[in-house]
Amino acid sequence: MLYFEDLQPGQRFLSGAHTLSEAEIIAFARQFDPQPFHTDPEAAKQTFFQGLAASGWHTSSLSMRLVEQTELGQAANGLIGMQIDQMRWPQPTRPGDSLHVEVEVLDKRRSGSQPGFGVVKVKWTTRNQNGGIAMQLECAIWMQCRAQEPGAAV
Amino acid sequence: MLYFEDLQPGQRFLSGAHTLSEAEIIAFARQFDPQPFHTDPEAAKQTFFQGLAASGWHTSSLSMRLVEQTELGQAANGLIGMQIDQMRWPQPTRPGDSLHVEVEVLDKRRSGSQPGFGVVKVKWTTRNQNGGIAMQLECAIWMQCRAQEPGAAV
Repeated sequence: MLYFEDLQPGQRFLSGAHTLSEAEIIAFARQFDPQPFHTDPEAAKQTFFQGLAASGWHTSSLSMRLVEQTELGQAANGLIGMQIDQMRWPQPTRPGDSLHVEVEVLDKRRSGSQPGFGVVKVKWTTRNQNGGIAMQLECAIWMQCRAQEPGAAV
Repeated sequence: MLYFEDLQPGQRFLSGAHTLSEAEIIAFARQFDPQPFHTDPEAAKQTFFQGLAASGWHTSSLSMRLVEQTELGQAANGLIGMQIDQMRWPQPTRPGDSLHVEVEVLDKRRSGSQPGFGVVKVKWTTRNQNGGIAMQLECAIWMQCRAQEPGAAV
């Protein structure tokens, strides 16, 4: 189990990799982002993406699963995102791309309103097999503390 | 077809609604966010969410599809998000919740580097059947112009 006290700025977590197939890209897009550049390899060639590309929401959702499989997924109260501060997709993700996520702890503070909890800011960088950045985000996660802060009001 | 010139700050688009079933919530979470509060109605009762709740990534991905079904989905070059500036989930989404999205155009500017394109800032507010906010984000989308700006360098 991982608690607020266990995380420190600068700490890093590295996920395993997942290779996205064309079929997975198309199945996700048909359900959530049915645009030709995500669902139709032929039609995609004439678009902005010049070929089939995964929906950004697919890349992000897959990144969530990969992060849960790191030690960070052992958070005592679960991995609960409060807010995403910035999310971007610098490079398209193509069929056959193998993605992994690097997580870095940026900052942390105890909650003022809820004793026993804290907010940890983390940065996720999802990279493909060539090191290219498929997705990057910064978010605040809600973490349970192992103990009350000494002298804290209860 | 919708072009950069067709969008103005203050303009609004309203999506249709989608009702999320318990089965859909669990199926998404098993694939992308397999934590007990998203996959197991019984175990979820003892967690932060006090009952089954949809993964935030599910709410966001579903919002994408709902927005594509509005007039904004008729963007000439497709609906291409460049960056999310802020995304949060103020209220959990429960089985049976019916979600729709309100989109508001915040701002727009022509691209300096790519003549013939522009960046439009929009805000999405995903509400449930009670008006509660399930998800809110601000993002920049990439839009094709109908015409070059008069006098613009080519």
